[in-house]
Amino acid sequence: METNTQAALLVKMTVAAWDTQNNYFTKLIDMLSDEQMKSEIAPGRNTGVYLLGHLAAVSDAMLPLLGWGDKLFPELEEVFIKNPDKATAEKPSVAELKEKLQAVNTTLSSHIHATTLDQWLDRHMAVSHEDFAKEPHRNRLNVLISRTNHMANHIGQLLLLKQAS
Amino acid sequence: METNTQAALLVKMTVAAWDTQNNYFTKLIDMLSDEQMKSEIAPGRNTGVYLLGHLAAVSDAMLPLLGWGDKLFPELEEVFIKNPDKATAEKPSVAELKEKLQAVNTTLSSHIHATTLDQWLDRHMAVSHEDFAKEPHRNRLNVLISRTNHMANHIGQLLLLKQAS
Repeated sequence: METNTQAALLVKMTVAAWDTQNNYFTKLIDMLSDEQMKSEIAPGRNTGVYLLGHLAAVSDAMLPLLGWGDKLFPELEEVFIKNPDKATAEKPSVAELKEKLQAVNTTLSSHIHATTLDQWLDRHMAVSHEDFAKEPHRNRLNVLISRTNHMANHIGQLLLLKQAS
Repeated sequence: METNTQAALLVKMTVAAWDTQNNYFTKLIDMLSDEQMKSEIAPGRNTGVYLLGHLAAVSDAMLPLLGWGDKLFPELEEVFIKNPDKATAEKPSVAELKEKLQAVNTTLSSHIHATTLDQWLDRHMAVSHEDFAKEPHRNRLNVLISRTNHMANHIGQLLLLKQAS
């Protein structure tokens, strides 16, 4: 296999891993009732609603981090990233959060699938040109890898909202 | 950046993501008391002991899957992969499972860090030469990506064993 084909294949595999987790996340929250989504994953822990809002906010924040424009729903950050679940009594409804997630995913996906190998390996917006020259792994694709694992982490928790079989 | 350098960097990033999750997993189970490890992550769900054994068994099974030799502890599969937590009353101790995990990680890590780019992109042992020719993404590195996400999934659950802050 030629080496440029190798690099392209590696990017494809990494994007596929993101898609797998992200599609599974969407499928999972669609399987859960609003009642289940409002429950805590374990006694005293985060609710499904909070984790849904959290993952939507983190995906939304990937847009500016990857140089793909402004966040669509900057208001999510305060409730779902800066503050823990119990800090905010009133949260958006499950339906509203699912709609926002879908909008974020549509925008994100169009960028992800239009990004070239060289663009993936270019710096992300939170690293300076100077630091990037020394640490070339701090690129856009590494953000996608890290966000994939973050999502997998919370999917493991959301699975606890399903009825025990 | 030259394209062969690109592919090497991509492999390095993927291996680093595995190391991050795997090191975090080890650190997490070392932080938890035996009492906490024996608890369920949520009422009626898997215990920490089961998830520790499960992840040790899944990592051990990577050895033959990646063509790196036999499993070190084939007996783990029956209790921690083929059967659910509640099916087996008597389980190995936390100390024994931690020792086995460490042995698996030492062997696995020596192979992971000695594997070349071309070896990573070669087929894993569960795919035939014929299928691999059509689906080149079914390579060893893809197994590592998939196991990284699987581990992240269960780390999210093991985190629930920590005392709520």
